[in-house]
Amino acid sequence: MNGESPLRIADVWDAAYRLRGIAHRTPVLANPSLDHAAGGAVICKAEALQRTGSFKFRGAYNALAALPDVARKRGVICASSGNHAHALALAASLMDAPVTVVVPYDAPHMKISAAQSLGAEIVRYDPNVDKRDEIARRISIERGYSIIPSANTAAVMAGAGTVALEFIQQSPELATILVPVGGGGLAAGTSLIVKAVRPGVRVIGVEPESGNDAARSFQAGERVELPRVPATIADGLRHTMPAELPWRIMKELMDDIITVSDGDIVRAMQWAFEYLKIVVEPSGAVALAGASSIAASGGVIGTVLSGGSIDVDSFRSLVSKFPSLREYSVASPDC
Amino acid sequence: MNGESPLRIADVWDAAYRLRGIAHRTPVLANPSLDHAAGGAVICKAEALQRTGSFKFRGAYNALAALPDVARKRGVICASSGNHAHALALAASLMDAPVTVVVPYDAPHMKISAAQSLGAEIVRYDPNVDKRDEIARRISIERGYSIIPSANTAAVMAGAGTVALEFIQQSPELATILVPVGGGGLAAGTSLIVKAVRPGVRVIGVEPESGNDAARSFQAGERVELPRVPATIADGLRHTMPAELPWRIMKELMDDIITVSDGDIVRAMQWAFEYLKIVVEPSGAVALAGASSIAASGGVIGTVLSGGSIDVDSFRSLVSKFPSLREYSVASPDC
Repeated sequence: MNGESPLRIADVWDAAYRLRGIAHRTPVLANPSLDHAAGGAVICKAEALQRTGSFKFRGAYNALAALPDVARKRGVICASSGNHAHALALAASLMDAPVTVVVPYDAPHMKISAAQSLGAEIVRYDPNVDKRDEIARRISIERGYSIIPSANTAAVMAGAGTVALEFIQQSPELATILVPVGGGGLAAGTSLIVKAVRPGVRVIGVEPESGNDAARSFQAGERVELPRVPATIADGLRHTMPAELPWRIMKELMDDIITVSDGDIVRAMQWAFEYLKIVVEPSGAVALAGASSIAASGGVIGTVLSGGSIDVDSFRSLVSKFPSLREYSVASPDC
Repeated sequence: MNGESPLRIADVWDAAYRLRGIAHRTPVLANPSLDHAAGGAVICKAEALQRTGSFKFRGAYNALAALPDVARKRGVICASSGNHAHALALAASLMDAPVTVVVPYDAPHMKISAAQSLGAEIVRYDPNVDKRDEIARRISIERGYSIIPSANTAAVMAGAGTVALEFIQQSPELATILVPVGGGGLAAGTSLIVKAVRPGVRVIGVEPESGNDAARSFQAGERVELPRVPATIADGLRHTMPAELPWRIMKELMDDIITVSDGDIVRAMQWAFEYLKIVVEPSGAVALAGASSIAASGGVIGTVLSGGSIDVDSFRSLVSKFPSLREYSVASPDC
C-alpha cells in the first residue's frame, strides 16, 4: 500500500475487545438446499441478527468508544442511508452522547424511526440535490459535534472488520468471502483482516450493477465517480464513489469486485427467508446474490448477510415485483 | 404424578448429550421494540434456526439414536403434520436408516418436499377421514419398522425438553416460559425440566383458540377430544386431543394453558420478521402470540419460536389476510 495504511490489524483487534459483550457474535448459517440453489457450498454470517439489525453497530460503537470523553459528551453526528444512523443512535444512547443523524428523505421508515426512538435528532436531505457530508460538516462545526463517518475512518472500518475476524474463526473451511460494497468500510475491514490472518482466502466485493462505482474503480485502478445516485433497490449501497480510505485498502487487497442485478438480490432475499429463516434487506442480500456467479470456482463461499432492516410490506412489495423468481424456491431446507 | 412418570429428568440430560454437536444451540433473541409491542419484556428461543427449521429435530434424532441398532437398520416410520417428518428424515439420513413418513395431503409443500429430498418415502392421508396413527401402525407391522411418534414417547419428549434446558441456561432472568402445544411433546419436556431445575419459573402452554383441545383438557382435568380437526392456520397444531404421555406431565406440571387467535399469530409472525429478523411459521409463532396476554403479570417472558417452515408466498398470503395488523409495525428495532 502506498504510504501508511489507513487501517492496522491492531485496530481490528482493539475493536474486537471493545465490542466484546456489547455486540452479538452472530451465527453462521447454512443449508444444503441453499447450496443447491446457489450452485456451490455457501455459508452465511448473519449480521441481520446483530444489534440494530446490521453490522454497522460494530463500527459505530467502536468509533464512539474510541473518542475522547469530552468529545463524546459534546455530541456526534453522521450522514447515513439509515443503518449507520440507527447504529450510531444506539451506541450514543448506550454511552449517553447527544447524536444527530443526516438521512435521505427517502430512507426506509423503519431505519429512521428506529434512530428517532433512541433519541437521535433527525436531519433530512435530498440525495439528488444536497451533499450529505457537507450538511454533516456544517452542523458539526456549528455545534462542536464529532463526525462519525459511515466508512471513511479507521475506527469504523475496524469495527466492520470484526465481522470477518469472527467469520474466519467460526468457519475455518472458508475459501472465499463475499461482502457487499457501499462506502467500502466493510469491504476494507474484511480485506485487511482476512489477508493478514488467512491470506489464502479470496475476498470479493459485490455491488448492485446499477451502483457499480467500486467495480468500475477497481477495473480502472482509480476512483471513478458515477454521474448520478444509483437507482438500485439496495438503498444502503447507493454510493457514487468509494470513500477514500477504504478505497486505498480495497484497491490493494481485494481479489475482485463483481456486480449483481436487482433480480439477483431479491432472489437472495428469498433464499435467506426460506432456507435460512432469516430476514435480509436488499443491501444485506447483495453478497449472497453474488454467490452463484463465483460458485464454479470451487471451495466454500462465505457471504456476509450484512443487514435486515426491512418491514413486511416492503418485503412483500419487492417479492411481488419479481414473480418469475419463484421457480428458485422448489427445493427446501434439509439441514 | 400418578404412577411412574413417563419422562425422567435423566432422559432429558441423555438427550442433551446425544444432541451435542449434532443439533444447533439456537440463539435467544430480543428487541426493545418487541417488548414495547408485546407490553412486557420478551425473549425468544429461535428454534426456527434449528436444523430442519424446527425443534422437532431434537426429539426425532434422540429417539432414533436411542433405538437398538437392529431396529434402526430395519427402518422407522412416523405420522406428522410435516416438521416431525422432515426432522425424522434428516435424522434417518444421518444414521442411514430407511424412513417412511405419513403426512396429511394438505401439509405445506415445503415440509414434505424437504423430507422427500432426504430420501424419505411419503405416504399421504386425508386428516378428515383417516387416522394417521392407524396408517403408521399398519405399515410398521407390515415392514417391521419402528414407530417414532411426534410426541407420545419419552425419547421424543426428552429431545424437545433440551430446548428448555438450553433456554434456562442461556437466560437466567426468565420468569415465565411460553410454549406452543400441539401433541404436547414440547410442552411436557419443557414442564418437566423447568420444574426440576428452576421451579420458580412458570410454564404456560399456548394453543390456537380454534384448536384448544389441551386448554379444554387442562380446565376439565382430563383429556377432552375436539369433534373435528381444527381449522387454525397453525398447521402443526391441528390436534384433536393431547397425546397420552405428554398429557400426564402437562396436567401435573404446567401452570396454565392459554389460547390465541389466528390474527394474534400473524401479528407475532410480523413481530418476529421486523424486530427479530427471523422467519417463523404460524405454529412457531403461537407462543410469542400469547406473550401480550400474560405481560401484565410481570417478569421476563421467554417464548419458544418453535419452527420456521413457511415459504415466501404463504407468508405473503397470510399477512395480506390480516392487513389491520400493520398498525403494530410502526415501532422498530433498536437493539
